[in-house]
Amino acid sequence: MTEEKRLNVIKIGGNVIDNEEKLKEFLSDFSKIDGPKILIHGGGKIATAMADKMGIPQKLIDGRRVTDAPTLQLITMVYGGLIGKNIIAQLAALGNDALSLSGADINSVNTVRRPTEPIDFGYVGDLKAVHAKNIQKLLEADFIPVFCALTHDGHGQLLNTNADTMAAGIATAMSQFYKTKLYYCFEKKGVLENRDDENSVIPQLSYAQYLQLKNEEKIVAGMIPKLDTAFEALENGVDQVTILQADYLLQTLLFKENHGTEINYQPA
Amino acid sequence: MTEEKRLNVIKIGGNVIDNEEKLKEFLSDFSKIDGPKILIHGGGKIATAMADKMGIPQKLIDGRRVTDAPTLQLITMVYGGLIGKNIIAQLAALGNDALSLSGADINSVNTVRRPTEPIDFGYVGDLKAVHAKNIQKLLEADFIPVFCALTHDGHGQLLNTNADTMAAGIATAMSQFYKTKLYYCFEKKGVLENRDDENSVIPQLSYAQYLQLKNEEKIVAGMIPKLDTAFEALENGVDQVTILQADYLLQTLLFKENHGTEINYQPA
Repeated sequence: MTEEKRLNVIKIGGNVIDNEEKLKEFLSDFSKIDGPKILIHGGGKIATAMADKMGIPQKLIDGRRVTDAPTLQLITMVYGGLIGKNIIAQLAALGNDALSLSGADINSVNTVRRPTEPIDFGYVGDLKAVHAKNIQKLLEADFIPVFCALTHDGHGQLLNTNADTMAAGIATAMSQFYKTKLYYCFEKKGVLENRDDENSVIPQLSYAQYLQLKNEEKIVAGMIPKLDTAFEALENGVDQVTILQADYLLQTLLFKENHGTEINYQPA
Repeated sequence: MTEEKRLNVIKIGGNVIDNEEKLKEFLSDFSKIDGPKILIHGGGKIATAMADKMGIPQKLIDGRRVTDAPTLQLITMVYGGLIGKNIIAQLAALGNDALSLSGADINSVNTVRRPTEPIDFGYVGDLKAVHAKNIQKLLEADFIPVFCALTHDGHGQLLNTNADTMAAGIATAMSQFYKTKLYYCFEKKGVLENRDDENSVIPQLSYAQYLQLKNEEKIVAGMIPKLDTAFEALENGVDQVTILQADYLLQTLLFKENHGTEINYQPA
């Protein structure tokens, strides 16, 4: 394990993907970040729009999307093809040798299909293994891996995977080779103390504080799995996790300004 | 230039892609080929079927498809996503570390958009440059590049490109580093002396013979650009070009049996 080499793992979600102008700006910023870096992108609304176009009904259970066979086919097209290839074409225009990958590419991310009981979410995979050595080979060749949130079960089956979990899994695995920082870019400026006040960003969040805010129901819904994943990543070797808005990524990374929420892991 | 290292570049078309069973067999054969190898796949009928599903009218001029903006989006999804990612998931299941790439990935294949006069074929790119060094890095990492026939213009625009031309372009560029053999797998057993007789395969085809058969109208239509590309590849450094049926690839490569048509370039 060498501690000198640094790696930035950056995850962007729908709010960047869905907005052509925002995505362009983000990719321009991203291309300015020095050293080894990995991008993980979620799906956004394009998949839903395309499902409508193709007449694929989107099934929801408890508000969560079910990945049936036609939906898997659809997201393989949209995430793996449309979004991924357009991102790397834009990165190439900015002078970057990037690759758009799924977890099946170079067998990088293995998952197991989620048990169909109690709820069958369809072709959804939960993290099993990340082939860090193969991803490292790409980084050492000065390539920039760009992952969509599609993985495989090792038996030829592609599986839909949560992009936050995938980013954390990749960052965790890579931390055996690099001092790894994970950046979750999302629609808010950071974790908010008061959900109605965009400027109530918590600069540093400890686990104790997180539990307290969760208890007080100040942190709810989608933020909980994101933070659980963040704390887990820190526990398992990731050097730093920051949750912020994509617009502030460059200031944070390049100019060392403080933006967003830095997650602090303190071992119990 | 080292002449010891060998590279096999294999192109498959619609007749393999469109048939699930055939594709599975082919990939099993392909995975048994030793040493560095590159796969290039065409699109097949899946794109047309998907265009129908999505209500994208397919425009033809002189029997040739026009790649308008919705069609480019469609093939980016189908070639880059659906076909590519399913191929590498299957290859992964067979123990191969493969990557599904477009020409925009690692800036590997640059094209220029075809002039819109006299006929505007839309977002179609003609070969400009292959970044052989980057592709070599993947091969040296023991990865298997799997290309779809999508390229980019270096300014962020993806372009549809002929898969035969792309395969020849990649093989030609790689021949500076490897003794490169190019295999065009297609629906016939080889170049036929008599188009109505499947068994009239010409084992070796010289340029003089090709010109004569073309003159006699025994070689027509789709075969002409394929053969022109083949002779050009040989002229520019590719060691061998063979046109054959995918079913015979393994016998030819592994067991050194003679199948298909070997194209012989004799300098004038």
